[in-house]
Amino acid sequence: MRYELFYWPSIQGRGEFVRLALEEAGAAYTDVARGSAGMAKMMSLLDSTKVEYPPFAPPFLKAGKLLIAQTANILLYLGARHRLAPASEAGRLWAHQLQLTIADFVQEVHDTHHPIASSLYYDDQKPEAKRRAADFLENRVPKYLGYFERVLTRQRGGHLLGARLTYPDLSLFQIVAGMRYAFPNAMRRIERKHRRVVAVHDAVAARPRIAAYLRSDRRIPFNEDGIFRRYPELDE
Amino acid sequence: MRYELFYWPSIQGRGEFVRLALEEAGAAYTDVARGSAGMAKMMSLLDSTKVEYPPFAPPFLKAGKLLIAQTANILLYLGARHRLAPASEAGRLWAHQLQLTIADFVQEVHDTHHPIASSLYYDDQKPEAKRRAADFLENRVPKYLGYFERVLTRQRGGHLLGARLTYPDLSLFQIVAGMRYAFPNAMRRIERKHRRVVAVHDAVAARPRIAAYLRSDRRIPFNEDGIFRRYPELDE
Repeated sequence: MRYELFYWPSIQGRGEFVRLALEEAGAAYTDVARGSAGMAKMMSLLDSTKVEYPPFAPPFLKAGKLLIAQTANILLYLGARHRLAPASEAGRLWAHQLQLTIADFVQEVHDTHHPIASSLYYDDQKPEAKRRAADFLENRVPKYLGYFERVLTRQRGGHLLGARLTYPDLSLFQIVAGMRYAFPNAMRRIERKHRRVVAVHDAVAARPRIAAYLRSDRRIPFNEDGIFRRYPELDE
Repeated sequence: MRYELFYWPSIQGRGEFVRLALEEAGAAYTDVARGSAGMAKMMSLLDSTKVEYPPFAPPFLKAGKLLIAQTANILLYLGARHRLAPASEAGRLWAHQLQLTIADFVQEVHDTHHPIASSLYYDDQKPEAKRRAADFLENRVPKYLGYFERVLTRQRGGHLLGARLTYPDLSLFQIVAGMRYAFPNAMRRIERKHRRVVAVHDAVAARPRIAAYLRSDRRIPFNEDGIFRRYPELDE
C-alpha cells in the first residue's frame, strides 16, 4: 500500500513529524500537495462534503480506505504498523503519551511568533511575541526538555523507550533541529543541560534512512512560514 | 479495579474530561488529590525518580500497574475498556482524532486568558488577553464548532460517531458547558448556528449517570482558576 500524505507543500510544520516516521519506516508514500495539482486535491478533500471522517486541518494521511488526521493520531497508526512503537498496550500508551507532550511543545513553539492570533501577521503581534518567546525560553523549554532528559535518564538505552527507537524519538530529533534553527543562541545554552536529548537527535540524524532523507530534496528547509522560525529579536 | 485519578483538586480543568468518562462508564475511581493527603500523594508521584513512566503534568490515571498521562491518551485507554469508543481500528482512530481536535480547542480557550505566559497572572497580560479572546471568538470558535457541526451533520444519529455515544461526545458537552460559563454573550450568538453541537450537550447532560454527577459535589463548579474563566471584559 502506498500512503498519501496531505500537508502544506512549502513548510515542514506538523507534517514533518509524519514524514520522519514514513522515511524511517521506508514506507512508500506520496507527499501529495508537493506534486502537480496536489494542493487542489488536498483542498478538495478538506472541503468535500462526501468524506465520512473529515479532517479539521492538515496533516492527514490516506492509508487505503482510512483517512487519518491529527499528527499524533497518524503516528499512533504508523507506529503500530511499522514497528515504531512497542507491541504491548503499556508501551503503546507510553509512546503516545510522550508524543502528545511533544505536540503540546510544538504548539507553544508556534505561539512564540503568533501569541495573539494565527490570522494575524507576525508583524502585527511583535511586542507580544517578544514577551511570549522570553517566557518560553526561560520557563517552558527547560521544563519540557528537562522532562525528556529525565525520561531518558530513567529509561537508559539511548532512546525515550529504552534500547529501541520509536516514533517519539523521531519527533524529539525534530524538536532539537527546529529549536537550533529558531533559537540558536538560547539553544547553545540550553543544550548543555540536556545532553541525552541532544544524543537522541544525533542518533536519529545518523540513521541511514533519516540521513538520506535529510540530504534529499524531500526535506523542505526550515523557513519563516513554518512552526520553527528564526526571528533574531526573539532569541536575544 | 478501582482507578485513581490524579488532578488539581479545585478546578475542572483537563481532568474534567477524564471525570466525565469515568462517570459515564460507572467506573469506580478515587479523585485522589481531593482526598486527605491527596495533593502530597500527587506531587510525590510527579516528582518521584522511581516512576518508570513519569507524567509531564496532571491529569494522570493509575489503572492497576499502568500510570497513564495526557488527557486524550487516558480517554483512548478508557474508551476501549468501557465501550466509550468503537471496537474497530477505523472507529477508534476517528474518535481519537476528534478528541485531539477538542484538545487543541481547550488549549486555545486557556490561552484567551493566558496569551503570554502561564507563569504570569491574568492581570499581567490583560490587554493581550483582550486581543486574543476577540480573535478566538470571531475566528476560532466558529471554525471549531463549525467543524463539529459538520461532523454531526454527516454522521447523523445525534452523536459525533453516529448513533452511539463515545468519549468525544462527553468532551464536546464540556466544551459547550465551559463556553457558556466563560463567554455567555458570545455563546448566545454562536449557539444559533451550531444546533447539533448544542443537541449533543443536551443529550449528554440528560444521561442518568452524567445528570447525577452534575448534581453531585464531585462536579467542581466552574471558577476563575480553571480553563474556562468568566472575565466579562473578554466577552463584550
